[in-house]
Amino acid sequence: MSRYWSDVVHSLTPYVPGEQPKLSKLIKLNTNENPYPPSDAVLEAMRAQAAYSLRLYPDPNSDALKTAIADYHGLITAQVFVGNGSDEVLAHVFHALLKHDEPLLFPDITYSFYPVYCGLYGIEYQTIALTEDFQISVDDYLRPNGGIIFPNPNAPTSCALPLTEIERLLQANPDSVVVIDEAYVDFGCESAVQLVNRYPQLLVTHTLSKSRSLAGLRVGYAVGHADLIEALVRVKDSFNSYPLDRFAQAGAIAAMQDEAWFQQTRQRVITTREQLVSDLQALGFEALPSAANFIFVRHPSHDGAALAQQLRERSIIVRHFKNPARISAFLRITIGTDAECNALVHALRELVTS
Amino acid sequence: MSRYWSDVVHSLTPYVPGEQPKLSKLIKLNTNENPYPPSDAVLEAMRAQAAYSLRLYPDPNSDALKTAIADYHGLITAQVFVGNGSDEVLAHVFHALLKHDEPLLFPDITYSFYPVYCGLYGIEYQTIALTEDFQISVDDYLRPNGGIIFPNPNAPTSCALPLTEIERLLQANPDSVVVIDEAYVDFGCESAVQLVNRYPQLLVTHTLSKSRSLAGLRVGYAVGHADLIEALVRVKDSFNSYPLDRFAQAGAIAAMQDEAWFQQTRQRVITTREQLVSDLQALGFEALPSAANFIFVRHPSHDGAALAQQLRERSIIVRHFKNPARISAFLRITIGTDAECNALVHALRELVTS
Repeated sequence: MSRYWSDVVHSLTPYVPGEQPKLSKLIKLNTNENPYPPSDAVLEAMRAQAAYSLRLYPDPNSDALKTAIADYHGLITAQVFVGNGSDEVLAHVFHALLKHDEPLLFPDITYSFYPVYCGLYGIEYQTIALTEDFQISVDDYLRPNGGIIFPNPNAPTSCALPLTEIERLLQANPDSVVVIDEAYVDFGCESAVQLVNRYPQLLVTHTLSKSRSLAGLRVGYAVGHADLIEALVRVKDSFNSYPLDRFAQAGAIAAMQDEAWFQQTRQRVITTREQLVSDLQALGFEALPSAANFIFVRHPSHDGAALAQQLRERSIIVRHFKNPARISAFLRITIGTDAECNALVHALRELVTS
Repeated sequence: MSRYWSDVVHSLTPYVPGEQPKLSKLIKLNTNENPYPPSDAVLEAMRAQAAYSLRLYPDPNSDALKTAIADYHGLITAQVFVGNGSDEVLAHVFHALLKHDEPLLFPDITYSFYPVYCGLYGIEYQTIALTEDFQISVDDYLRPNGGIIFPNPNAPTSCALPLTEIERLLQANPDSVVVIDEAYVDFGCESAVQLVNRYPQLLVTHTLSKSRSLAGLRVGYAVGHADLIEALVRVKDSFNSYPLDRFAQAGAIAAMQDEAWFQQTRQRVITTREQLVSDLQALGFEALPSAANFIFVRHPSHDGAALAQQLRERSIIVRHFKNPARISAFLRITIGTDAECNALVHALRELVTS
C-alpha cells in the first residue's frame, strides 16, 4: 500500500497461476501442460532465431504468423489477432470489447482470471451459476448484457458445450460480443471458429500452450470479424508495439504448420484421458465428462484437499480449488504420459482403499 | 468503428513504431538498434532453450532474471520489475503509478508513446516545452503534478540531463512518482539507478533492446523502491502471469552477465558517434549534444523531410518527424557500424554539396 499508487492498484486481487515448482522429479499434473514436447521441426525453427538478427526488432505486426493462423483456419489475416500468450490476448479483449453499460456475463465456476481482468479495467460483471451437474446452460445467458465470455470446454470442469448451443446463443444475442475461449478445444470439442464468418459479434481465442506444446513460448491468438480485430490492434498498439519476440513468431509459425505432430500428440492425450477416467472410475471416483487435456474428479468418501496433499507427499502435484465450496471436493488433474497417469492411479489406489 | 467496441477504443491514437522494412540490403539507421549483435555466449544461452522443456510454462516471476538485474545494479530483487520490452514495463507504470488527480508532466518533445499510454488509461497530462536549445529544464517541472516522466537522455533529441539536476527535481518533488526512462543511458549518460535507495518516489526503466543488442527478444525492466515495484507486480499479475518466455529469461540473464561484450560494444558505438558528428559538422550540419546511440541533426539549408527521402532513394533509412514543427528540420540517425556511417556521410556529402 503506498500513496504513490494509482487508485486501481489498491483494489486489485491478482490472479494466482498454478505452481511452477523448481524441483524436478515431480509428476507435474497441475497446470494443464502437454506431456509431449514440441516437434523437432518446431524446435529447429526457434533454434535458428538465436542469431545476429536478434539485435533487430521483430515484425511488430507478426504478419507471417497471422498468415499461418489464417491459413490454418481458412480465414484472412484481418480476422486474426496475436498476443503474448492467450492471457495477454484476453486482457486486450476485456479492455477493448467488454466494457459497456450492461454487465459482462460469465459462469460462476470458470477461468478465475476473468474477474481479475474486470477489476483491472473497471468492468461490471455478473456471474451465472452452472447447472446442478456443472454445465453451462445457454438459456441463463439470455438477458441484458455488455458481453458474454466462457471457455469451451469450460475450466476447471472440463465440460464442453455443443456448437449448436453456441449458435443458439449467438442468434439470440446479436448486440454484444460473445467470446468463446477455446484454450482446450483441440482435445475433443467442436470449435466455434467455423462460425466467425457468420456472426460479427463472435470472437474465439486459442493458445499454443496446450495442444501445441508451447507453454514456455507464450503465444495465443483471437479470430473474429475484422472490426473486432481492429479494436484489439488499436489497444495493442497503444500498449506495446512488439509483444511477440523473434522466437515466439518463428516457433508459432512452425507449430501451426506441423499438422502431423499436432494430430498425433493430441490423439495420444485423448486416448490416455479415456484410460485414466476408466481407471479412476474403477476406484470409485466420479469424473465430469471431459473434452479437455485435464479431468475434474471427486471421490464420494475422500476430501479433495486431503487427497491433493497426500499426492503431493508422493511427489505428484494436481490442482485443488478451495473456492467456491461447490467444487472443493474435486481435483483437477492434467493428462500426463501413460506412465505418469499410471503412477497417479497407483498412488490414488493406495489412498482411497487404505 | 464498431458498436461492439469499448468506449476507450474510439478515441485511441495508437503509437506508430519506426518502420521495420522486410527488404534486406538497406542501411537501417531508423529505430536505434545496436549495430553489433549479442555475444555468442548470449546466443548459446537462448539456443539451449529450444528444448523439450518448452512444453512447460516459464517461471511466471522471472526470479533468476530479477536476481541477475539486482546483482548488476547492487539492489535486491524486490526492487526489480521485468516485462516484455520496456514498452510493456512503461504501460504498467502508467497504469499502476501515474494516474492521479493532478496531471502527469512530460516534455513536449519526447518519446511519443507517453501520450498514447495516457489515452489508453485515461490519464490527464500536461506537456512542458523544452527550452530554446531543446533541453529539459527542471525548474519548469516544479508545479503541482500527479507524476513526472522523461527519458534521459531524451528522445529524439539525444540530450542528457545531469544527475545533479535529477536529484534537485527529486528533492523538490517528494509527493509524486518521478520516472526516468533510461533506454539510452548506457551510451554516455549518468544513471539515476544509484539514487533509488534514497528516493522512494524514483523509478528508473531500462531496456535490453539498445545497449544489450536484444531488440528482437523483448525484455525491459524497472528498478525502484519495493512499494513502487509491488504496484507494478499487482498490475502485471492482473494482466498476464507469464510475460517473459523461456528464451527471453535465459537470454536476458546471459546478457546482464556478459559485462565484457557490453562494455566493448557500447564503447564502439560511442566512438563511432563522435566520428559521425564530426563528419556531419564538416558538412555544415548542426548536431544536438548526444549521449545516446543516435544523433539529432539539421542542416541550415536543407529540408529534413527531403533529405530523409533522398537518403531512402539511396537505400539508407533514417527517421524524420514531421511533428511537432519545431523539430521538422531534424533527422534522427541511429549510430551504425563505421562502414554504415561512412556510407551515410558519403551520401549526405553528395546531397548537401550538389
